[in-house]
Amino acid sequence: MAPDATHAEQPIDSDDLEIAYIGGGSRQWAPNLIQDLALSEFDGHVRLYDTNQDAAETNAEFGNWVQDDPDATAEWSYEAVDDLDDALDGADAVILSTQYDPRDTFVHDLRIPKEYGIYGAVGATIGPGGIFRAMRTIPVFRRFAAAIRENCPDAWVFNYTNPVHFVTRALYDEYPDINALGLCHEVLGTRWHLAMLAEEELGMDAERADVEVNVKGINHFTWVDEARCKGVDLWPLLHELKDGERGSKRFTYDDLKDDSVFSDNWQVTWELFRRFGVLPAAGDRHLIEYATSFIADGQDSLNHWGVRRTDADYRAKHWTPAESKQTTNVEGWMEGEREFELESSGEEFLDILEGLTGDGPYVTNVNLPNSGQISDIEQGPVVETNAVVRDNQVKPVNAGGFPRPVRSMVQGHVDTIETIIEAARTGDVDLAFQGFSIDDQVQTLTPDESRDLFGELFAAETEFLDDWNTDDSEVLAKADTFDA
Amino acid sequence: MAPDATHAEQPIDSDDLEIAYIGGGSRQWAPNLIQDLALSEFDGHVRLYDTNQDAAETNAEFGNWVQDDPDATAEWSYEAVDDLDDALDGADAVILSTQYDPRDTFVHDLRIPKEYGIYGAVGATIGPGGIFRAMRTIPVFRRFAAAIRENCPDAWVFNYTNPVHFVTRALYDEYPDINALGLCHEVLGTRWHLAMLAEEELGMDAERADVEVNVKGINHFTWVDEARCKGVDLWPLLHELKDGERGSKRFTYDDLKDDSVFSDNWQVTWELFRRFGVLPAAGDRHLIEYATSFIADGQDSLNHWGVRRTDADYRAKHWTPAESKQTTNVEGWMEGEREFELESSGEEFLDILEGLTGDGPYVTNVNLPNSGQISDIEQGPVVETNAVVRDNQVKPVNAGGFPRPVRSMVQGHVDTIETIIEAARTGDVDLAFQGFSIDDQVQTLTPDESRDLFGELFAAETEFLDDWNTDDSEVLAKADTFDA
Amino acid sequence: MAPDATHAEQPIDSDDLEIAYIGGGSRQWAPNLIQDLALSEFDGHVRLYDTNQDAAETNAEFGNWVQDDPDATAEWSYEAVDDLDDALDGADAVILSTQYDPRDTFVHDLRIPKEYGIYGAVGATIGPGGIFRAMRTIPVFRRFAAAIRENCPDAWVFNYTNPVHFVTRALYDEYPDINALGLCHEVLGTRWHLAMLAEEELGMDAERADVEVNVKGINHFTWVDEARCKGVDLWPLLHELKDGERGSKRFTYDDLKDDSVFSDNWQVTWELFRRFGVLPAAGDRHLIEYATSFIADGQDSLNHWGVRRTDADYRAKHWTPAESKQTTNVEGWMEGEREFELESSGEEFLDILEGLTGDGPYVTNVNLPNSGQISDIEQGPVVETNAVVRDNQVKPVNAGGFPRPVRSMVQGHVDTIETIIEAARTGDVDLAFQGFSIDDQVQTLTPDESRDLFGELFAAETEFLDDWNTDDSEVLAKADTFDA
Amino acid sequence: MAPDATHAEQPIDSDDLEIAYIGGGSRQWAPNLIQDLALSEFDGHVRLYDTNQDAAETNAEFGNWVQDDPDATAEWSYEAVDDLDDALDGADAVILSTQYDPRDTFVHDLRIPKEYGIYGAVGATIGPGGIFRAMRTIPVFRRFAAAIRENCPDAWVFNYTNPVHFVTRALYDEYPDINALGLCHEVLGTRWHLAMLAEEELGMDAERADVEVNVKGINHFTWVDEARCKGVDLWPLLHELKDGERGSKRFTYDDLKDDSVFSDNWQVTWELFRRFGVLPAAGDRHLIEYATSFIADGQDSLNHWGVRRTDADYRAKHWTPAESKQTTNVEGWMEGEREFELESSGEEFLDILEGLTGDGPYVTNVNLPNSGQISDIEQGPVVETNAVVRDNQVKPVNAGGFPRPVRSMVQGHVDTIETIIEAARTGDVDLAFQGFSIDDQVQTLTPDESRDLFGELFAAETEFLDDWNTDDSEVLAKADTFDA
Repeated sequence: MAPDATHAEQPIDSDDLEIAYIGGGSRQWAPNLIQDLALSEFDGHVRLYDTNQDAAETNAEFGNWVQDDPDATAEWSYEAVDDLDDALDGADAVILSTQYDPRDTFVHDLRIPKEYGIYGAVGATIGPGGIFRAMRTIPVFRRFAAAIRENCPDAWVFNYTNPVHFVTRALYDEYPDINALGLCHEVLGTRWHLAMLAEEELGMDAERADVEVNVKGINHFTWVDEARCKGVDLWPLLHELKDGERGSKRFTYDDLKDDSVFSDNWQVTWELFRRFGVLPAAGDRHLIEYATSFIADGQDSLNHWGVRRTDADYRAKHWTPAESKQTTNVEGWMEGEREFELESSGEEFLDILEGLTGDGPYVTNVNLPNSGQISDIEQGPVVETNAVVRDNQVKPVNAGGFPRPVRSMVQGHVDTIETIIEAARTGDVDLAFQGFSIDDQVQTLTPDESRDLFGELFAAETEFLDDWNTDDSEVLAKADTFDA
Repeated sequence: MAPDATHAEQPIDSDDLEIAYIGGGSRQWAPNLIQDLALSEFDGHVRLYDTNQDAAETNAEFGNWVQDDPDATAEWSYEAVDDLDDALDGADAVILSTQYDPRDTFVHDLRIPKEYGIYGAVGATIGPGGIFRAMRTIPVFRRFAAAIRENCPDAWVFNYTNPVHFVTRALYDEYPDINALGLCHEVLGTRWHLAMLAEEELGMDAERADVEVNVKGINHFTWVDEARCKGVDLWPLLHELKDGERGSKRFTYDDLKDDSVFSDNWQVTWELFRRFGVLPAAGDRHLIEYATSFIADGQDSLNHWGVRRTDADYRAKHWTPAESKQTTNVEGWMEGEREFELESSGEEFLDILEGLTGDGPYVTNVNLPNSGQISDIEQGPVVETNAVVRDNQVKPVNAGGFPRPVRSMVQGHVDTIETIIEAARTGDVDLAFQGFSIDDQVQTLTPDESRDLFGELFAAETEFLDDWNTDDSEVLAKADTFDA
Repeated sequence: MAPDATHAEQPIDSDDLEIAYIGGGSRQWAPNLIQDLALSEFDGHVRLYDTNQDAAETNAEFGNWVQDDPDATAEWSYEAVDDLDDALDGADAVILSTQYDPRDTFVHDLRIPKEYGIYGAVGATIGPGGIFRAMRTIPVFRRFAAAIRENCPDAWVFNYTNPVHFVTRALYDEYPDINALGLCHEVLGTRWHLAMLAEEELGMDAERADVEVNVKGINHFTWVDEARCKGVDLWPLLHELKDGERGSKRFTYDDLKDDSVFSDNWQVTWELFRRFGVLPAAGDRHLIEYATSFIADGQDSLNHWGVRRTDADYRAKHWTPAESKQTTNVEGWMEGEREFELESSGEEFLDILEGLTGDGPYVTNVNLPNSGQISDIEQGPVVETNAVVRDNQVKPVNAGGFPRPVRSMVQGHVDTIETIIEAARTGDVDLAFQGFSIDDQVQTLTPDESRDLFGELFAAETEFLDDWNTDDSEVLAKADTFDA
Repeated sequence: MAPDATHAEQPIDSDDLEIAYIGGGSRQWAPNLIQDLALSEFDGHVRLYDTNQDAAETNAEFGNWVQDDPDATAEWSYEAVDDLDDALDGADAVILSTQYDPRDTFVHDLRIPKEYGIYGAVGATIGPGGIFRAMRTIPVFRRFAAAIRENCPDAWVFNYTNPVHFVTRALYDEYPDINALGLCHEVLGTRWHLAMLAEEELGMDAERADVEVNVKGINHFTWVDEARCKGVDLWPLLHELKDGERGSKRFTYDDLKDDSVFSDNWQVTWELFRRFGVLPAAGDRHLIEYATSFIADGQDSLNHWGVRRTDADYRAKHWTPAESKQTTNVEGWMEGEREFELESSGEEFLDILEGLTGDGPYVTNVNLPNSGQISDIEQGPVVETNAVVRDNQVKPVNAGGFPRPVRSMVQGHVDTIETIIEAARTGDVDLAFQGFSIDDQVQTLTPDESRDLFGELFAAETEFLDDWNTDDSEVLAKADTFDA
């Protein structure tokens, strides 16, 4: 059968679903999933695997505890598993959601580039920090993919780990027949925002599911060139709004300082729409890392467009690691300190699972290797478009191409991603540096600075980079910032 | 917006649907449509246009008559319109289903090639007859497309006219932004057959809608490389059956002579599956016109594989032209001679319309210009794959590529089609002959024979070919069979 | 450096050239080469390797004997070597020119298809016989390529072995960095013919070297779309001639029976030029195996266009194997029975060598993997275009694309070739049969006949096909003509 | 014939060559050409056309005067022509070399971006200044191409006007069958430099013609991945040198201030070679406008790598316009004030002409639309590779592809160029701004700054931009710097 088709051979048994959750010690997504499953139409068993075994144990305990809730209609059991192969063995579905302790990694991704004048707002998916996150994560996920090939080759794999484009690509690079989907909320957020505009501006009664978009791009740099709400074309409205008050807000630091860092003022969105005629479909704080002229002046420029940066301190402070005893949501519930009410999270995971088990077709945005769904990007790189989910298959929907200038920007980032992926195959540090050096954020540095930034990031995170061959690297040898 | 996206700008009003039916004097499809609409969730108005105005009038009369049926839940009115522009003006949906009187055309397509030893079974979509049908039809449909651009540029256009690939391509060639779908039953038949196999061989309770396939190709030469019934992979079953009794039947003329000419014994299907590992998804009688080794020995060879030919006499005899008074189904009903019971036909037209007006997503096979849905065929030619129908849009689903030998056969026919399309732009007869001469059926003739066959067909149907520049043609000048 | 560039790293020392001649027992080409070298500007050493060691010894003896000729200006020594690795070790240039005894192989390639009604004129490069020759030869040449990689990775490799496209492709498939050129005389013959036309029709004083063509295609199915003689465009002349007497000759068997079988009457050439507007550039007897409508009626059809077939008897009779003592040209010379005069053969081998060693640029037609020199054929397959030879490099010259119908025919043969190449990687007989079955000559057979023809050829030549996995083959198991 | 082939239909008569020189009032190139022709093997007539008719007259006078020189072996006559059509009528060769008075144009291209912090070194071919030069020049050259189509459709057109890639592309965009070559000295300079290295480091006796390179890219951003001197591979030498003293020089302003601004220290070259493994083949001062990290710190960064900027003052001061009486070389000669010695300039124009008239093949680097000579850039954009010049034809030589990061940089600039070319078709200012805004130099500005820079440049040069539709431009309407 066609290698570019994502499909599993055997149907999933909705009454006996085996889920492997890699990174199952999570305090954020795991409790949500547990509740969603308890309210679902599926029964089954979840194996939680985490390098932090205690956290996985706690979640398993919580999962089983939830079964006693009178509202829990589905039957699920949970266990923590300390061996990756055991966790994956025979799984129908695998969830991948892992992260190194950001205090050892992410904070460097943010702090060090800033010292070189690079003010990426998030630093997690592209730019110097995002690239180093990719360099840390790709080798791990290649091993996950290899283990899936051995233990559950036909499983559906849901990757939530950032940078989603790099990481999903790494899974396919290791195991081309994997049935892996890269998932992300940003496009859903755009659809929600468009529904809100339809309500406020057109007086429609609309919610996210009523908005259908034709979406294409790479994760966090996706673009929409058709949008309808209940069949009504939203394009004329968008053109009207971009030139009015909604589309022309500007900000200072003071305007923003009391808002959540995650607030999205859509001003980057409007400006890119104004310039290129197609609508970006990701939060402004992500977009500016790909369309870097918005941070050409650093922090001020960022704020000007209504974006706040989540810096190293923020990330360190807000880290709620699995092992932390501070934010004991689940323990609190289990010990009766906090009242528990079983609630659905609204996550899409179950919608997709239902589509796969016969309740389809279901159409949503998914990250998959390009097999033609974007017509003017090469085949192979992981792109994000709509896909149609049906019985045991997920097929991308054709999204067409881009206006040339937008394609150029997207292709530039694809080139960075593909270069890093290629470099990771052999641990070639100097090739990774080539990919790093053509990144738009990095290109604002002089050649010496970019090499030194690379070396300094490498030095700071070297313990997480031991799949890379530092010995042969001319770049590291020349960098003043790296001590071989 | 992207030119490769098929979508309309304004939503269709389900309560006030305007349909233009070109070829609306039809005695076959029109009565079905009228009944389907009467039972549908839509209300609206249908304008019937036909070169045979009487037939259109009769259908209009019948349509309005059906409204009185107590089971008719929807409100529809009908009128016959004698001007193409009037028929199209402001339409939401356009149905294209026309044919010249086969006694003046189709019979030549069948009889003349047979005299040269070419035994195509159908002769309607490829091979010398199919190519001449295309040469007659393309100029007409270019004019239809131009009229749609003028009168209802945003309408949904449903083309049922053969050869579907040539004709749908001609619509897009004239008017690239047309929202036209080429529709055909063959893949539906394959899904029906697979459901039957699932029932008989796997004991499943299955119908056509339970079978999902990944389909790709050109109309009547489509291929399936994934098939599931309720999520169960049918591939292992198909491999088993191809080598057993089901897959190995052979026939003589006597075995077949009492069967319907439309019976499908699937032996060509099994043989191609055996050879190439992917399953053809069209009736055997169509397949053998594209995979021509099955007719290498003419009639015997055809029968050997369980296929009967519909020859010129058959076509002439079974023609129930719109103007005929012989087969008065609708008159009989209206005049009370035959009892009328309002019945749904099961046609997909309404399923697609419902998908377009919000009751989606609906996935089915559709003929559309390739914009990447088939990964190893160039962009532009009309191909057939699944598409997802949602509010006001139809997007192809990515179907991947072919095994190389199959791609080679498909590409060969694409080359014929594209050459004829290019020739039709300027009426270049000699370029059309180039496309004709590389057709697999024609290639079994010597160079002189192929030129003479071309000339003879041209002479026989010349009154339907007056968009072509015969004066400049070297081929016609040299052909013994054509008198300039 | 770029993998698609054909170049060697070290310059060749013209005064100490090491040549390995694989198939060096040849009675035809070897004596020519020996004389050419003796008259050349190079000095060096030739190692002759042949499965027939005696023949190689004789040629070595002859080579050294020629050194005593007073006209021999260059210094060369010769030795027969009985080990492939020894022959290749450190060579600067490798000549590949081998053939199994045609009485065991070629005669079957010709006789058996004829029994199925297939009248290929030559049977050596495409069609059932050509494909079997390829199946025999590819595994051997993969081993040659592997040995070259080990023993002389930077050597220039000149392949004269048919089928040149299959065989040259096999060399690159095994060793992608090989510096191999596939060489053939057909295009040179077309240039010679054009020079003759310029002389006779335009009164020019012209020879082959005065004619420059833009050539493209695959070996033996090459096409010219520009031709000049001393800068004069020959296109108007060709258009005039194709419609006159020169372009319209027809023949019977009697007309031809006294001519050499190798006579070229150019009528296939004119007819294809007339039809497609571009000029084929290979002998008619080769063209008709690729443009198979010329043999649709078998022998008569062939003769009608002025072509004679070289059949099995002819090949058996005219075989002058290396081990034969009958045609002792060289022995006769050495023993003084025949007078020897040192003469240049006019072969291009030395022209290319001179170009490579600094006497360039030299432009000629060469078979190389497509890296863009043909713009509408995929990259990878071996194609024939002009190339420019300079110091230590051979780069293809951009030749553009084809009219679509011609591209379609070329691509069809490329698909057969690439399928066989892919099949040869693992010895997959059934995949080879897929490639075989889409060949235009084979497609004139019914499915059963094509399988039986395949089986019969396989059975007849099975001793030369032991790299193929017959055990797993469904096709051979089903063929009535093959006994597993 | 193939549209992607550059060739003329009729051979050039070397004894009666008609040359049209557009921009023929030049004081720099015209006197060189006149002397070269006087010493050439051609005879003929030159028509000099210039908006400055006096300058053309002077050159005509000089040309005829040179004929009296005893060393003048060829017969040439000259005339100034004041009508473009008259100048072109029936020409065999057309030279295009024009420029607006830099004091009205170029000085703004340099001064205004500098005020925004953009320190391009030359500003003539890419970056904000280069793009505006393109926007001024493209419409003019479209008119030239249209006039060539009318007056001398088969002529060979030699374009020396910058930006060569934009301008040559504009010629082909207007008249796809034009036989136009874009010519430039930069790659020749690289070959000269490599010959110098071969002499100094390898002790070879070498000059430019002894060095052969495989070159590819766009003009001024070309790359070499093979280089040989008399067959000796220079790659090992280059790897050695890049890490030694030659490859590691750094500079301050003081180090450079006494050097010519045109000195080339090759340090940008070495750094890019070090980073990407392929060698750039243009002067450092051009490269840094395409690989913009070298100017990330402005002037200091530029000097650091050994490059001096030619700023607005320099350009204004050194302008030797045709109408100037200051630098009266030719008048001085003619009036006997300066001694005249007839000398060859070494320009390649005559080498190419000789190749075209039979003295070939000649291989050199040429700018032509990509028809596959670069394998990983789309077809259509004008690229620079080697080409082979023969009788009446120029065919690109296949150069292969790039390492991905280099391809990414090249493609980014291609996207700017193609966007501007597309915009120029209809004078779409906002689309031009899209191309402008994705330029690497411009991307270092904030969105507001880039719009204002665009507006300011437009305002300063508006009289030269009247082919552009300013009225419909949203960008100009929003720019604070442009007054509609």
